[in-house]
Amino acid sequence: MSIGSVKAIVFDIFGTVVDWRGSLISDLTRWGAGRGITRDWAPLVDAWRQAYVPSMESVRKAGSWRKLDDLHQESLDRLVKEHGITGLSEADLDHINRGWHRLKPWADSVSGLTRLKTRYTIGTLSNGNVSLLVNMAKNAGLPWDVVLSAEVFHHYKPDPEAYLGAAEILGLRPDELMLAAAHNGDLAAARKCGLKTGFVARPTEYGPLQSRDFAAESDWDVVGEDFNDLAAKLGC
Amino acid sequence: MSIGSVKAIVFDIFGTVVDWRGSLISDLTRWGAGRGITRDWAPLVDAWRQAYVPSMESVRKAGSWRKLDDLHQESLDRLVKEHGITGLSEADLDHINRGWHRLKPWADSVSGLTRLKTRYTIGTLSNGNVSLLVNMAKNAGLPWDVVLSAEVFHHYKPDPEAYLGAAEILGLRPDELMLAAAHNGDLAAARKCGLKTGFVARPTEYGPLQSRDFAAESDWDVVGEDFNDLAAKLGC
Repeated sequence: MSIGSVKAIVFDIFGTVVDWRGSLISDLTRWGAGRGITRDWAPLVDAWRQAYVPSMESVRKAGSWRKLDDLHQESLDRLVKEHGITGLSEADLDHINRGWHRLKPWADSVSGLTRLKTRYTIGTLSNGNVSLLVNMAKNAGLPWDVVLSAEVFHHYKPDPEAYLGAAEILGLRPDELMLAAAHNGDLAAARKCGLKTGFVARPTEYGPLQSRDFAAESDWDVVGEDFNDLAAKLGC
Repeated sequence: MSIGSVKAIVFDIFGTVVDWRGSLISDLTRWGAGRGITRDWAPLVDAWRQAYVPSMESVRKAGSWRKLDDLHQESLDRLVKEHGITGLSEADLDHINRGWHRLKPWADSVSGLTRLKTRYTIGTLSNGNVSLLVNMAKNAGLPWDVVLSAEVFHHYKPDPEAYLGAAEILGLRPDELMLAAAHNGDLAAARKCGLKTGFVARPTEYGPLQSRDFAAESDWDVVGEDFNDLAAKLGC
């Protein structure tokens, strides 16, 4: 079996392990209700996520590191104005921004990871910064052996330094490490670096805006229906 | 209580959480028995640990990063010759070097950490490299929320960058982070950076060679008999 060499699995987080869209909308709805603000938060959340890739591209071009919490904050400051949301204090904006630290896992994430952990070292490999990932794990009960982040390597995925850095810091050859992700593009970049690849579709990640990643688009080393199916297929 | 601000506790590892001396001696004794080699391994282990501080000092002077696994390997290569141990293959030396990945916790470590984890984010802050710490945790059942290492900051303790880097990457002010250690010197360096401090004595760490750290030598923020006592004193 070509995946017999795998000793550790690192996971993409946003969309793969946690439901960022559903979590942020419900977090904002609950927060808004407590403040007497009733509105449809989906457009803000969708616009916020659309700012994600360009914000990382600006870091690549600038050549000096900025963590995702700060990029999220900058995008949020701009977007609340564009969406006509007024009267928010610095503390409000900080609370909203830390919604990314409070994202909720998909229903199968914790049980699947717990199974995978019995046989493999499991970790994050996310563009989220370390504190975001640690707070999320603490809040959601994600049982990581190790929290790895673009922040540790000062390179956002899909830069090769992120995938190769993860293998190196875990003391593994690239083919001893698997990336698990719900995004074909992330897996393609990992495969180019020599990592093994595992795909799980998350077809509701982007809600009605979802336009891709409904299915595996290449012969990834393993494809699971969800994390429990992935665990079963990986012998756990 | 001055420690009310603490949100996370990072732990020194060698000597504080795990018994490096007892573990390495018993690891080598078992390995040697399987190879028909009977000898007192304590002198080699003690000399190996004595090479630790000078080897990190050489990294500081050179100004280019080398991880602890590599420093350990280099010291071991030299010491086996000095101790007249012959006939070891590269694979043997690698196995012996990875004994640091297999160190065993003190009797109270896992139960105390498990209690502390209920209230605090708990992590490592060790000069051991990440893969060493992750393999050790997996092997020994250490329930870390996050594995932080000198390797992430490219600075060995007691350089201030290691303590301040840990606070920064966890998104905390220095006074929101506590270092727990069995070494007064490590705690003094952490306090200088503004961290809170917790002491537990490990009076058998160095065996008959132990010459210090039998007790707290300053007014550390909390002093425990062991990790369970530390947990009780920190409200867990």
